[in-house]
Amino acid sequence: MNYSMIRFILAWVLKVEGVLMLLPCIISLIYRDPEGKVYLLLALAAMLVGGLISARRPKNMELYPKDGFVAVGLSWVLLSAYGALPFVFTGEIPSYVDAFFEIVSGFTTTGSSILSDVEALSHTTLLWRSFSHWVGGMGVLVFILMMIPSQNGSHMNLMKAESPGPEVSKFVPKVRNTARILYRLYLIMTVVQIVLLLAAGMYWFDALCISFGTAGTGGFGILNSSCGSYTPAQQWIITVFMIAFGVNFSFYYLLKIRRPKDAFKMEEVRYYIIIILLAIGVIAWNISGSGMYHGVEETVRASAFQVGSIITTTGFSTTDFDMWPTLSKTILVGLMVIGACAGSTGGGIKVSRFVICLKSVKQAIYAIAHPRAVRKIRMDGHPVPENIMRSLYGYMVAYFAIFAFSVLAVSVDNFSFETNFTAVAATLNNIGPGLAQVGPTQNFGGFSIFSKLVLSFDMLAGRLELFPLLMIFYPKTWKNC
Amino acid sequence: MNYSMIRFILAWVLKVEGVLMLLPCIISLIYRDPEGKVYLLLALAAMLVGGLISARRPKNMELYPKDGFVAVGLSWVLLSAYGALPFVFTGEIPSYVDAFFEIVSGFTTTGSSILSDVEALSHTTLLWRSFSHWVGGMGVLVFILMMIPSQNGSHMNLMKAESPGPEVSKFVPKVRNTARILYRLYLIMTVVQIVLLLAAGMYWFDALCISFGTAGTGGFGILNSSCGSYTPAQQWIITVFMIAFGVNFSFYYLLKIRRPKDAFKMEEVRYYIIIILLAIGVIAWNISGSGMYHGVEETVRASAFQVGSIITTTGFSTTDFDMWPTLSKTILVGLMVIGACAGSTGGGIKVSRFVICLKSVKQAIYAIAHPRAVRKIRMDGHPVPENIMRSLYGYMVAYFAIFAFSVLAVSVDNFSFETNFTAVAATLNNIGPGLAQVGPTQNFGGFSIFSKLVLSFDMLAGRLELFPLLMIFYPKTWKNC
Repeated sequence: MNYSMIRFILAWVLKVEGVLMLLPCIISLIYRDPEGKVYLLLALAAMLVGGLISARRPKNMELYPKDGFVAVGLSWVLLSAYGALPFVFTGEIPSYVDAFFEIVSGFTTTGSSILSDVEALSHTTLLWRSFSHWVGGMGVLVFILMMIPSQNGSHMNLMKAESPGPEVSKFVPKVRNTARILYRLYLIMTVVQIVLLLAAGMYWFDALCISFGTAGTGGFGILNSSCGSYTPAQQWIITVFMIAFGVNFSFYYLLKIRRPKDAFKMEEVRYYIIIILLAIGVIAWNISGSGMYHGVEETVRASAFQVGSIITTTGFSTTDFDMWPTLSKTILVGLMVIGACAGSTGGGIKVSRFVICLKSVKQAIYAIAHPRAVRKIRMDGHPVPENIMRSLYGYMVAYFAIFAFSVLAVSVDNFSFETNFTAVAATLNNIGPGLAQVGPTQNFGGFSIFSKLVLSFDMLAGRLELFPLLMIFYPKTWKNC
Repeated sequence: MNYSMIRFILAWVLKVEGVLMLLPCIISLIYRDPEGKVYLLLALAAMLVGGLISARRPKNMELYPKDGFVAVGLSWVLLSAYGALPFVFTGEIPSYVDAFFEIVSGFTTTGSSILSDVEALSHTTLLWRSFSHWVGGMGVLVFILMMIPSQNGSHMNLMKAESPGPEVSKFVPKVRNTARILYRLYLIMTVVQIVLLLAAGMYWFDALCISFGTAGTGGFGILNSSCGSYTPAQQWIITVFMIAFGVNFSFYYLLKIRRPKDAFKMEEVRYYIIIILLAIGVIAWNISGSGMYHGVEETVRASAFQVGSIITTTGFSTTDFDMWPTLSKTILVGLMVIGACAGSTGGGIKVSRFVICLKSVKQAIYAIAHPRAVRKIRMDGHPVPENIMRSLYGYMVAYFAIFAFSVLAVSVDNFSFETNFTAVAATLNNIGPGLAQVGPTQNFGGFSIFSKLVLSFDMLAGRLELFPLLMIFYPKTWKNC
């Protein structure tokens, strides 16, 4: 293990986090929030300590795959552990475990909250919460990659460990440049959303925070009603952008380099759109009889907003979907698990993994009829390589194993099965709200400290696609080899 | 597709079912039940029709793997469709869908019932229900295999399709003899249980029915309290035999041919015992504070009975475990999914599949650290062949896909998520009771006709390990090829 390189990366993470904390400082100046001082001190401390430790570059900057996973896992733990401090020192979330849960939920773009009254928070802290979504969405390591020099594929190993999906899309030969392209796309789309929301009459602070949350597919609202009090036009804009940020970014890159044909050929994107349209249709039909909504537009808007929010794992809400009929709620739970596209900012298992998995059922049936033939699973017309298949199965099993053990662990608190099951689904898939006691109008504050730590682990495991976090807890990782 | 061979097998199934129906006829003589006449007429009709159709042996008796799967799938549908008739014609379950659900639940050894008052049934019908567990447990095709001659591995293809688990154990070169050994072991163990229960003071009819249910890991009780009113000694005997029938029968065969060392080396059996002991311990501790049980013996007995009943997918109960704390209920849901050993009469995913799956997570972590090394997963010291791994993954994906779609379909009835989730878990894993509205003191009668058919499909799919049933619904199966 290249310990000095891991130290170097962690120091960079701290330094960057310090710089990021300057944004809430600016907001505190505008609103004259006294909380700004805490942020400023923590920002300076992080930059100073991080700067000092990262001043000396390691001689050997090479990272093996294992090192990359461990570095990413530890980076995110450090990012969260330090990012929780402002909440505690401003006194807005006095318990450290609660503060840690809240910021993990932010960086992992989950959006589950332990707070019952977010409107009581200062603007400075509200911005820090929402901004953490934006940072976590594209990934802090990918951000750092743009700045530190690469050596022998080390960058690739970091990017592999932090990026969601079974395969990492490398647009251009240099990982560094791919990272830059990704961040540029991300920034442009965010700015467009802010501008549109402003045009639709939203207050600038709301537009900023909501766009950060949408871009990162986070889900922290800044009002207790989440997005329920925004105008229909504003809700539709958010809906469209939530779905847009759940699309594989390769799609936009292909559009950008004028290869729209290839873009629209992407199987994952097509299935993603089909699933969304189907879910919106069935739910709209199912809830139309509930009497909760008036007229077709309101019904479809409620359906589309929640579907977009849940499948992209954003987690905003405009209505209490815990009151919906069981069929609609069950569809939402299904969307929770499926998640967004690989290579997007969304969480969940990812549409492409599902498509590959369902194809493997067809393959198994085919294998019974033709025992001697070996037919490879194809995606976008190309056969999926054997090693990708193997790691995909490993991922799926690890996913369900972590899911099951978490539901078991959380059940110690003796809440209902529905609460526990959807709490784990909501955190492991980085969604935010679940059903019953963790429904959209409820929060995670009622869980015990133990359960909050389990769910924090689930959020980190979900965002990093399990393995970086599993690697940290795997004893053999730390043996010399 | 060898249609004439499939016709021949189906005719045999009908013939054998006719013979099996003679047992309830005998019981009806003892109890002077007027229902006996219905059973006798149906038995004679089945033997006559089946006998006529199977009189002419097909020229080509060869079965390809695909034919084997289709034959098994259709056989079980026929077995159930005909086996439901006595319930309807005696008027004891007037609705055919209800009767079909009930007998599917019997043959698949599920034990879910649509009846709220089983004590109202005649002894004849009670015996037919329990006897269907015994027949379904070891498999009706395996039974027929003992009688019809084999050709070029056709027997193996039938046995593969009907036997539970990722690999079929062939004790001896001839499948026919393996089937005989299996049935002999099965019969001996059942008789021993009957004798022990009689010795413990149980009434002979109860001993017979309960032993049939235990052997097949079914779960139809003949009292409304299931096994709650039996004495502690009787409950302990049932507990031990439930667990014993959930063990891979290879274990007993190895003991029988005096290779105890190899028997106790079986990884699956060892994990099975460890899981059972752990679950009993944790649940006993968890429910000891509930005030439902007095003293250590009663607490441990309640825990052991339900754990044994659920992991082996039997489904008897001695207590209303729906009243247990959430942790204990969650453990039970976990055991539902895990299921018994491969090569036993129990259902579920099977312990061996779980062990292999968890090993594949370890393999995936290892692969990150050593990207170029290929390490095979080993079971009982031998590497698991690639084709077994592939079909195992196909199975797992199909399992979760069917699970998800069934929960979705059943949610149309608008019961709670817990009810729907555990109803599917209980039927797809052939257990019997779930939680909430399908808990041990409740029944499946409240579901709509549509949901009952979905759950019947799940029971059959679960018993036959998905693929025989999926093959029937896969359009390409029926194209000439």
